[in-house]
Amino acid sequence: MSLSMHTASVPVFQQMLNALAGVLTKAEAHANERRIDHAALLQARLYPDMFPLVRQVQIACDFAKSVSARLAGADVPSYDDSESSYAELQQRIATTLNFIGGLDAAQFEGSDQREIVLRPGTPKERRIGGQAYLLAYGLPQFFFHVTTAYDLLRHNGVEVGKKDFMGVY
Amino acid sequence: MSLSMHTASVPVFQQMLNALAGVLTKAEAHANERRIDHAALLQARLYPDMFPLVRQVQIACDFAKSVSARLAGADVPSYDDSESSYAELQQRIATTLNFIGGLDAAQFEGSDQREIVLRPGTPKERRIGGQAYLLAYGLPQFFFHVTTAYDLLRHNGVEVGKKDFMGVY
Repeated sequence: MSLSMHTASVPVFQQMLNALAGVLTKAEAHANERRIDHAALLQARLYPDMFPLVRQVQIACDFAKSVSARLAGADVPSYDDSESSYAELQQRIATTLNFIGGLDAAQFEGSDQREIVLRPGTPKERRIGGQAYLLAYGLPQFFFHVTTAYDLLRHNGVEVGKKDFMGVY
Repeated sequence: MSLSMHTASVPVFQQMLNALAGVLTKAEAHANERRIDHAALLQARLYPDMFPLVRQVQIACDFAKSVSARLAGADVPSYDDSESSYAELQQRIATTLNFIGGLDAAQFEGSDQREIVLRPGTPKERRIGGQAYLLAYGLPQFFFHVTTAYDLLRHNGVEVGKKDFMGVY
Protein backbone atom coordinates (compact mmCIF):
# COMPACT_ATOMS: atom_id res chain seq x y z
CA MET A 1 0.00 0.00 0.00
CA SER A 2 1.45 3.31 -0.96
CA LEU A 3 -1.21 6.02 -1.08
CA SER A 4 -3.18 7.49 1.76
CA MET A 5 -6.86 8.32 1.31
CA HIS A 6 -5.97 11.95 2.02
CA THR A 7 -3.27 12.06 -0.68
CA ALA A 8 -5.71 10.66 -3.24
CA SER A 9 -8.42 13.20 -2.46
CA VAL A 10 -7.70 16.63 -0.95
CA PRO A 11 -4.58 17.58 -3.00
CA VAL A 12 -6.37 16.48 -6.21
CA PHE A 13 -9.34 18.69 -5.40
CA GLN A 14 -7.02 21.56 -4.46
CA GLN A 15 -5.07 21.40 -7.73
CA MET A 16 -8.18 21.27 -9.88
CA LEU A 17 -10.17 23.92 -7.96
CA ASN A 18 -7.25 26.33 -8.07
CA ALA A 19 -7.05 25.69 -11.82
CA LEU A 20 -10.81 26.25 -12.15
CA ALA A 21 -10.46 29.58 -10.33
CA GLY A 22 -7.84 30.58 -12.92
CA VAL A 23 -10.10 29.51 -15.80
CA LEU A 24 -12.93 31.62 -14.36
CA THR A 25 -10.60 34.61 -14.02
CA LYS A 26 -9.81 34.29 -17.74
CA ALA A 27 -13.49 33.91 -18.58
CA GLU A 28 -14.34 37.10 -16.69
CA ALA A 29 -11.52 39.01 -18.41
CA HIS A 30 -12.67 37.66 -21.79
CA ALA A 31 -16.23 38.87 -21.14
CA ASN A 32 -15.04 42.28 -19.93
CA GLU A 33 -12.73 42.86 -22.91
CA ARG A 34 -15.50 42.03 -25.37
CA ARG A 35 -18.28 43.71 -23.38
CA ILE A 36 -20.14 40.42 -23.11
CA ASP A 37 -22.95 40.37 -20.54
CA HIS A 38 -21.57 38.33 -17.63
CA ALA A 39 -24.72 36.19 -17.58
CA ALA A 40 -23.98 35.00 -21.11
CA LEU A 41 -21.15 32.77 -19.92
CA LEU A 42 -22.30 32.25 -16.33
CA GLN A 43 -25.63 30.86 -17.54
CA ALA A 44 -24.25 29.10 -20.65
CA ARG A 45 -25.04 25.41 -21.09
CA LEU A 46 -23.71 22.78 -23.50
CA TYR A 47 -27.29 21.55 -24.00
CA PRO A 48 -30.63 22.86 -22.75
CA ASP A 49 -31.05 20.15 -20.11
CA MET A 50 -27.47 20.34 -18.86
CA PHE A 51 -26.52 22.61 -15.97
CA PRO A 52 -25.15 26.11 -16.68
CA LEU A 53 -21.63 27.19 -15.75
CA VAL A 54 -22.61 28.55 -12.33
CA ARG A 55 -24.13 25.21 -11.34
CA GLN A 56 -21.19 23.20 -12.72
CA VAL A 57 -18.84 25.20 -10.48
CA GLN A 58 -21.14 24.84 -7.47
CA ILE A 59 -21.37 21.06 -7.93
CA ALA A 60 -17.61 20.68 -8.43
CA CYS A 61 -17.16 22.46 -5.09
CA ASP A 62 -19.85 20.27 -3.53
CA PHE A 63 -18.11 17.03 -4.50
CA ALA A 64 -14.77 18.35 -3.25
CA LYS A 65 -16.21 19.33 0.13
CA SER A 66 -18.57 16.37 0.62
CA VAL A 67 -16.13 13.64 -0.43
CA SER A 68 -13.39 15.18 1.72
CA ALA A 69 -15.70 15.66 4.71
CA ARG A 70 -17.16 12.15 4.60
CA LEU A 71 -13.74 10.53 4.29
CA ALA A 72 -12.51 12.66 7.21
CA GLY A 73 -15.56 11.79 9.30
CA ALA A 74 -16.48 15.48 9.48
CA ASP A 75 -19.85 17.15 8.97
CA VAL A 76 -20.45 18.25 5.39
CA PRO A 77 -20.80 22.04 5.40
CA SER A 78 -23.87 23.40 3.67
CA TYR A 79 -23.50 26.25 1.18
CA ASP A 80 -26.32 28.28 -0.33
CA ASP A 81 -26.43 27.93 -4.10
CA SER A 82 -26.89 31.65 -4.57
CA GLU A 83 -23.85 32.61 -6.65
CA SER A 84 -24.60 34.78 -9.68
CA SER A 85 -21.27 36.49 -10.40
CA TYR A 86 -17.65 35.58 -11.04
CA ALA A 87 -16.69 37.09 -7.68
CA GLU A 88 -19.22 34.90 -5.89
CA LEU A 89 -18.01 31.77 -7.69
CA GLN A 90 -14.43 32.64 -6.73
CA GLN A 91 -15.61 33.01 -3.16
CA ARG A 92 -17.29 29.61 -3.21
CA ILE A 93 -14.11 28.00 -4.51
CA ALA A 94 -12.08 29.82 -1.84
CA THR A 95 -14.50 28.70 0.90
CA THR A 96 -14.28 25.12 -0.35
CA LEU A 97 -10.49 25.23 -0.49
CA ASN A 98 -10.42 26.68 3.01
CA PHE A 99 -12.63 23.89 4.32
CA ILE A 100 -10.81 20.96 2.73
CA GLY A 101 -7.42 22.49 3.54
CA GLY A 102 -8.42 22.60 7.19
CA LEU A 103 -9.07 18.86 7.44
CA ASP A 104 -6.28 16.91 9.10
CA ALA A 105 -4.76 14.13 7.00
CA ALA A 106 -4.91 11.87 10.07
CA GLN A 107 -8.72 12.08 10.02
CA PHE A 108 -8.70 10.19 6.70
CA GLU A 109 -6.92 7.15 8.10
CA GLY A 110 -9.04 4.02 7.84
CA SER A 111 -11.60 5.78 5.64
CA ASP A 112 -11.01 3.26 2.84
CA GLN A 113 -12.84 0.71 5.03
CA ARG A 114 -15.49 3.08 6.37
CA GLU A 115 -19.02 2.70 4.99
CA ILE A 116 -20.36 5.83 3.29
CA VAL A 117 -24.05 6.41 2.63
CA LEU A 118 -24.82 8.08 -0.70
CA ARG A 119 -28.04 10.10 -1.08
CA PRO A 120 -29.17 9.14 2.46
CA GLY A 121 -32.92 9.00 3.03
CA THR A 122 -33.75 9.05 -0.67
CA PRO A 123 -35.00 6.20 -2.87
CA LYS A 124 -31.52 6.17 -4.40
CA GLU A 125 -29.77 5.63 -1.05
CA ARG A 126 -26.75 3.40 -1.41
CA ARG A 127 -24.01 2.19 0.92
CA ILE A 128 -20.50 1.99 -0.40
CA GLY A 129 -17.05 1.42 1.06
CA GLY A 130 -14.80 4.47 1.43
CA GLN A 131 -12.32 3.30 -1.17
CA ALA A 132 -14.97 2.90 -3.89
CA TYR A 133 -16.64 6.10 -2.68
CA LEU A 134 -13.48 8.04 -3.53
CA LEU A 135 -12.17 6.23 -6.61
CA ALA A 136 -15.30 4.96 -8.34
CA TYR A 137 -17.74 7.71 -7.35
CA GLY A 138 -16.21 10.89 -5.91
CA LEU A 139 -13.32 11.50 -8.31
CA PRO A 140 -15.33 10.72 -11.50
CA GLN A 141 -18.15 13.02 -10.34
CA PHE A 142 -15.76 15.81 -9.37
CA PHE A 143 -13.78 15.60 -12.62
CA PHE A 144 -17.00 15.53 -14.63
CA HIS A 145 -18.03 18.95 -13.34
CA VAL A 146 -14.63 20.69 -13.49
CA THR A 147 -14.15 19.41 -17.04
CA THR A 148 -17.64 20.38 -18.14
CA ALA A 149 -17.16 23.91 -16.73
CA TYR A 150 -13.97 24.19 -18.80
CA ASP A 151 -15.55 22.64 -21.93
CA LEU A 152 -18.46 25.02 -21.69
CA LEU A 153 -16.19 28.07 -21.61
CA ARG A 154 -13.98 26.68 -24.37
CA HIS A 155 -17.09 26.05 -26.48
CA ASN A 156 -17.99 29.71 -25.99
CA GLY A 157 -14.65 30.94 -27.24
CA VAL A 158 -12.83 31.71 -24.00
CA GLU A 159 -9.11 31.38 -24.71
CA VAL A 160 -8.05 28.76 -22.20
CA GLY A 161 -5.99 25.65 -22.83
CA LYS A 162 -5.14 22.30 -21.28
CA LYS A 163 -2.52 24.00 -19.12
CA ASP A 164 -5.23 26.13 -17.52
CA PHE A 165 -7.34 23.04 -16.91
CA MET A 166 -4.51 21.08 -15.33
CA GLY A 167 -3.26 23.77 -12.97
CA VAL A 168 -0.01 23.49 -11.06
CA TYR A 169 1.32 19.96 -10.57
CA MET B 1 -1.52 3.90 3.86
CA SER B 2 -4.58 2.30 2.47
CA LEU B 3 -4.61 2.38 -1.32
CA SER B 4 -2.34 0.62 -3.75
CA MET B 5 -1.17 2.36 -6.90
CA HIS B 6 -2.94 -0.37 -8.89
CA THR B 7 -6.26 0.20 -7.10
CA ALA B 8 -6.09 3.93 -7.79
CA SER B 9 -5.40 3.48 -11.51
CA VAL B 10 -6.44 0.37 -13.47
CA PRO B 11 -9.94 -0.17 -11.99
CA VAL B 12 -10.70 3.56 -12.45
CA PHE B 13 -9.69 3.39 -16.11
CA GLN B 14 -11.68 0.17 -16.56
CA GLN B 15 -14.86 1.63 -15.09
CA MET B 16 -14.69 4.78 -17.18
CA LEU B 17 -13.64 3.11 -20.46
CA ASN B 18 -16.43 0.56 -20.16
CA ALA B 19 -18.81 3.47 -19.57
CA LEU B 20 -17.38 5.31 -22.59
CA ALA B 21 -17.96 2.21 -24.73
CA GLY B 22 -21.61 2.28 -23.64
CA VAL B 23 -21.91 5.99 -24.45
CA LEU B 24 -20.48 5.35 -27.94
CA THR B 25 -22.96 2.49 -28.47
CA LYS B 26 -25.78 4.92 -27.69
CA ALA B 27 -24.27 7.55 -30.00
CA GLU B 28 -24.11 5.07 -32.88
CA ALA B 29 -27.71 3.96 -32.29
CA HIS B 30 -28.79 7.63 -32.13
CA ALA B 31 -27.09 8.33 -35.48
CA ASN B 32 -28.57 5.22 -37.10
CA GLU B 33 -32.12 5.95 -35.92
CA ARG B 34 -31.99 9.49 -37.27
CA ARG B 35 -30.00 8.62 -40.38
CA ILE B 36 -27.21 10.95 -39.31
CA ASP B 37 -23.94 10.52 -41.21
CA HIS B 38 -21.61 8.75 -38.78
CA ALA B 39 -18.88 11.30 -39.44
CA ALA B 40 -21.14 14.06 -38.08
CA LEU B 41 -20.65 12.89 -34.49
CA LEU B 42 -17.30 11.12 -34.90
CA GLN B 43 -15.75 14.33 -36.22
CA ALA B 44 -17.74 16.72 -34.02
CA ARG B 45 -15.81 19.23 -31.90
CA LEU B 46 -16.85 21.58 -29.11
CA TYR B 47 -14.73 24.32 -30.71
CA PRO B 48 -12.78 24.43 -33.98
CA ASP B 49 -9.37 24.06 -32.30
CA MET B 50 -10.45 21.28 -29.95
CA PHE B 51 -10.07 17.63 -30.92
CA PRO B 52 -13.02 15.78 -32.48
CA LEU B 53 -14.74 12.83 -30.80
CA VAL B 54 -12.53 10.19 -32.45
CA ARG B 55 -9.40 11.85 -31.09
CA GLN B 56 -10.88 12.37 -27.62
CA VAL B 57 -11.54 8.61 -27.40
CA GLN B 58 -8.06 7.77 -28.73
CA ILE B 59 -6.39 10.04 -26.18
CA ALA B 60 -8.50 8.71 -23.30
CA CYS B 61 -7.29 5.22 -24.24
CA ASP B 62 -3.73 6.51 -24.54
CA PHE B 63 -3.68 7.91 -21.02
CA ALA B 64 -5.21 4.70 -19.63
CA LYS B 65 -2.61 2.51 -21.32
CA SER B 66 0.44 4.76 -20.84
CA VAL B 67 -0.19 5.64 -17.19
CA SER B 68 -0.89 1.98 -16.37
CA ALA B 69 2.15 0.74 -18.31
CA ARG B 70 4.56 3.27 -16.81
CA LEU B 71 3.38 2.56 -13.27
CA ALA B 72 3.71 -1.17 -13.92
CA GLY B 73 7.17 -0.72 -15.40
CA ALA B 74 5.95 -2.22 -18.69
CA ASP B 75 6.51 -0.98 -22.24
CA VAL B 76 3.80 1.38 -23.47
CA PRO B 77 2.08 -0.31 -26.42
CA SER B 78 1.79 1.81 -29.55
CA TYR B 79 -1.54 2.04 -31.35
CA ASP B 80 -2.13 3.53 -34.78
CA ASP B 81 -4.52 6.47 -34.63
CA SER B 82 -6.45 5.22 -37.64
CA GLU B 83 -9.96 4.76 -36.22
CA SER B 84 -12.75 6.24 -38.31
CA SER B 85 -15.83 4.28 -37.22
CA TYR B 86 -17.70 3.38 -34.05
CA ALA B 87 -16.63 -0.25 -34.46
CA GLU B 88 -12.98 0.78 -34.64
CA LEU B 89 -13.29 3.00 -31.55
CA GLN B 90 -14.92 0.11 -29.68
CA GLN B 91 -12.01 -2.08 -30.76
CA ARG B 92 -9.49 0.46 -29.48
CA ILE B 93 -11.23 0.60 -26.12
CA ALA B 94 -11.33 -3.22 -25.99
CA THR B 95 -7.62 -3.44 -26.87
CA THR B 96 -6.81 -0.91 -24.15
CA LEU B 97 -8.94 -2.76 -21.59
CA ASN B 98 -7.28 -6.01 -22.55
CA PHE B 99 -3.82 -4.50 -22.09
CA ILE B 100 -4.41 -2.83 -18.73
CA GLY B 101 -6.37 -5.84 -17.46
CA GLY B 102 -3.38 -8.04 -18.22
CA LEU B 103 -1.01 -6.07 -15.99
CA ASP B 104 -0.35 -7.70 -12.64
CA ALA B 105 -1.20 -5.59 -9.58
CA ALA B 106 2.14 -6.62 -8.06
CA GLN B 107 3.98 -4.80 -10.86
CA PHE B 108 2.60 -1.51 -9.49
CA GLU B 109 4.16 -1.94 -6.07
CA GLY B 110 6.62 0.82 -5.29
CA SER B 111 5.57 2.83 -8.34
CA ASP B 112 4.57 5.77 -6.14
CA GLN B 113 8.30 6.35 -5.56
CA ARG B 114 9.45 5.56 -9.11
CA GLU B 115 10.50 8.49 -11.29
CA ILE B 116 8.47 8.85 -14.48
CA VAL B 117 9.63 10.89 -17.48
CA LEU B 118 6.89 12.86 -19.21
CA ARG B 119 7.29 13.76 -22.90
CA PRO B 120 10.82 12.22 -22.98
CA GLY B 121 13.25 13.75 -25.46
CA THR B 122 11.08 16.79 -26.11
CA PRO B 123 11.60 20.38 -24.96
CA LYS B 124 8.74 19.77 -22.51
CA GLU B 125 10.45 16.77 -20.90
CA ARG B 126 9.71 16.59 -17.21
CA ARG B 127 10.53 14.14 -14.40
CA ILE B 128 7.88 13.46 -11.83
CA GLY B 129 7.38 10.95 -9.02
CA GLY B 130 4.97 8.09 -9.64
CA GLN B 131 2.45 9.31 -7.09
CA ALA B 132 2.13 12.76 -8.67
CA TYR B 133 2.23 11.17 -12.12
CA LEU B 134 -0.94 9.27 -11.32
CA LEU B 135 -2.87 11.71 -9.12
CA ALA B 136 -1.80 15.14 -10.38
CA TYR B 137 -1.24 14.31 -14.06
CA GLY B 138 -2.62 10.95 -15.28
CA LEU B 139 -6.07 10.95 -13.71
CA PRO B 140 -6.86 14.63 -14.56
CA GLN B 141 -5.74 14.08 -18.17
CA PHE B 142 -7.69 10.84 -18.51
CA PHE B 143 -10.86 12.30 -17.00
CA PHE B 144 -10.55 15.37 -19.20
CA HIS B 145 -10.84 13.30 -22.36
CA VAL B 146 -13.57 10.87 -21.26
CA THR B 147 -15.64 13.80 -20.01
CA THR B 148 -15.08 15.86 -23.15
CA ALA B 149 -16.11 12.89 -25.34
CA TYR B 150 -19.33 12.67 -23.33
CA ASP B 151 -19.91 16.46 -23.33
CA LEU B 152 -19.42 16.58 -27.08
CA LEU B 153 -22.06 13.90 -27.68
CA ARG B 154 -24.43 15.47 -25.16
CA HIS B 155 -23.98 18.83 -26.87
CA ASN B 156 -25.00 17.16 -30.13
CA GLY B 157 -28.23 15.80 -28.69
CA VAL B 158 -27.29 12.18 -27.98
CA GLU B 159 -29.55 11.01 -25.16
CA VAL B 160 -27.07 9.94 -22.52
CA GLY B 161 -27.02 10.87 -18.85
CA LYS B 162 -24.71 10.97 -15.85
CA LYS B 163 -25.41 7.27 -15.24
CA ASP B 164 -23.95 6.45 -18.65
CA PHE B 165 -20.89 8.57 -17.89
CA MET B 166 -20.30 6.96 -14.50
CA GLY B 167 -20.67 3.34 -15.57
CA VAL B 168 -20.87 0.48 -13.10
CA TYR B 169 -19.47 1.19 -9.64
